[in-house]
Amino acid sequence: MREHGGNLDLAQQRFGGRAEDWIDLSTGINRLPYPVGEIDARYWSALPSRSEIDALRKAAQHAYRTSAPVVALGGAQAAIQLLPRLAPRGRARVLVPTYNEYAPVLSTAGWDVEEVSELDALAGADFAIVVNPNNPDGRCYSPKDLLALLPRVGRLVIDESFADVVPHLSLASQAERPGLLILRSFGKFYGLAGLRLGFALGNATDIASLAAMSGPWPVSGAAIAIGRRGLRDDDWATATSARLARDSVRLDAMVQSQGWTLVGGTPLFRLYDTPDAPAAQERLARGQIWSRVFAQKPTWLRLGLPGVESEWTRLSEVLSR
Amino acid sequence: MREHGGNLDLAQQRFGGRAEDWIDLSTGINRLPYPVGEIDARYWSALPSRSEIDALRKAAQHAYRTSAPVVALGGAQAAIQLLPRLAPRGRARVLVPTYNEYAPVLSTAGWDVEEVSELDALAGADFAIVVNPNNPDGRCYSPKDLLALLPRVGRLVIDESFADVVPHLSLASQAERPGLLILRSFGKFYGLAGLRLGFALGNATDIASLAAMSGPWPVSGAAIAIGRRGLRDDDWATATSARLARDSVRLDAMVQSQGWTLVGGTPLFRLYDTPDAPAAQERLARGQIWSRVFAQKPTWLRLGLPGVESEWTRLSEVLSR
Repeated sequence: MREHGGNLDLAQQRFGGRAEDWIDLSTGINRLPYPVGEIDARYWSALPSRSEIDALRKAAQHAYRTSAPVVALGGAQAAIQLLPRLAPRGRARVLVPTYNEYAPVLSTAGWDVEEVSELDALAGADFAIVVNPNNPDGRCYSPKDLLALLPRVGRLVIDESFADVVPHLSLASQAERPGLLILRSFGKFYGLAGLRLGFALGNATDIASLAAMSGPWPVSGAAIAIGRRGLRDDDWATATSARLARDSVRLDAMVQSQGWTLVGGTPLFRLYDTPDAPAAQERLARGQIWSRVFAQKPTWLRLGLPGVESEWTRLSEVLSR
Repeated sequence: MREHGGNLDLAQQRFGGRAEDWIDLSTGINRLPYPVGEIDARYWSALPSRSEIDALRKAAQHAYRTSAPVVALGGAQAAIQLLPRLAPRGRARVLVPTYNEYAPVLSTAGWDVEEVSELDALAGADFAIVVNPNNPDGRCYSPKDLLALLPRVGRLVIDESFADVVPHLSLASQAERPGLLILRSFGKFYGLAGLRLGFALGNATDIASLAAMSGPWPVSGAAIAIGRRGLRDDDWATATSARLARDSVRLDAMVQSQGWTLVGGTPLFRLYDTPDAPAAQERLARGQIWSRVFAQKPTWLRLGLPGVESEWTRLSEVLSR
């Protein structure tokens, strides 16, 4: 498995403790999740029905403010796994640094993959991959610039896994345009990564291809039950966006004392430049707070946002030791 | 979507009622499911960890009495979706009549697919597909005959989705043999089809390929939590197998009054020959009991087993009208 956040196994192996003792800030997953609530027994027992999957798709269109065709999948990652088969093998370009699954999944499937560092350099690719806002550095691309790029590539895949908190950046409303494909994650903003739910939005042909590749029952009954509720809950989304915006500022302020400087981020995670990121990770880990470092960038430390107040307190204490 | 059992949407469209009013006997899913119980919050919130997925795999090895490599997937169906990419396109032969996803998934992916009606006719295929025991007719193939076929095909894929109740038929213990691949379903015997959990067992190379194709988090946290418990619960499995065996005899006896004759089945479903299956389906549906008919076989009616006693009573009443 490639290096990812959320690898608490590694934290426990190196620093001990039970999983439940740790505050996992190594991901961009909201730590105050959407309430799971009661799940009706039939969502566990029965195969998801066509009408329930349709209702989930409609809830996603509501949340993502689009009428474009949409398919529900087992996380944005499940969409990434299917990408290489959406078109005949060709040249893919990935705007980096970014989520580290795109390049290997495409190259393993026989695509010629090139990593580029500027948006313009994606032009000419059969597949162009942009994560917006970007993980881990929070870099943002304007809808205008992305739409200008669209006619210059075969397919423009925009991973909007962290876009719930910055809806003005989303191209979901335009997803039906030829060549555009938008990926969304449910688990991050709604804080339910274990549910495995995500969506792809695009033109009817691409979405039908992805649906055929993923089979008749690609998501669980629980994902349908909770996803339908969560994606329709505008009040929760509004309050959560506001809270995350406040809390990301609070986190930036809290780490100033360490001399860490903000590289970038979104309201779901912050990327800091530190004198020595592995040392900072280890210091946090001694207080059983897990963070993300990057082998290629020894000064980068990424932190998700603490959730309940006791997590903020512990972070503050660990930082002041 | 192809014709499947569990399509209660269709039952409701034609005969009315809410989903929860129906007794769905159109599938082979156990109607007295393994208790879901409490699911710890972290299974919803966190990405499934490597150690938890490993523990699920070990629980599957325990239940399926094997030490062969295993990968957890989103149902046996998820394994079927990946099959076409496990080897270069070639000739696939499917032993029919059987589960109607194999032939179209393989042929859509460019395989040359032939349907054959005798085990021996599979010889010479690059992929040979056998469902054992078979759905919908319950036909069984002996491990000896299947192992004799193995060297005569490229890969022998045995779908053991209904084998939990007939473990002596399983080749899971031999799954590591070159060319053999075994698929298992969690949802049917454990009565939790909405959980989307299944397994593929085989040699290390094939299982590593399937794992790479399915990505780092192919199953949900709830599937891990419940699957780990269920697959280790030998007492529940023993009691459930015994109960299903008794109840399948009870169902056969109950429908004798209708002049229906048993074509075959497993302790999870029964296939009956009836004078007019669509008419029988409609009669049951007027009592809000859903069953499975087959467009190509107008006398075949497949019934799953009722669960709680009130379901048996309703079936008996509807049959005596």
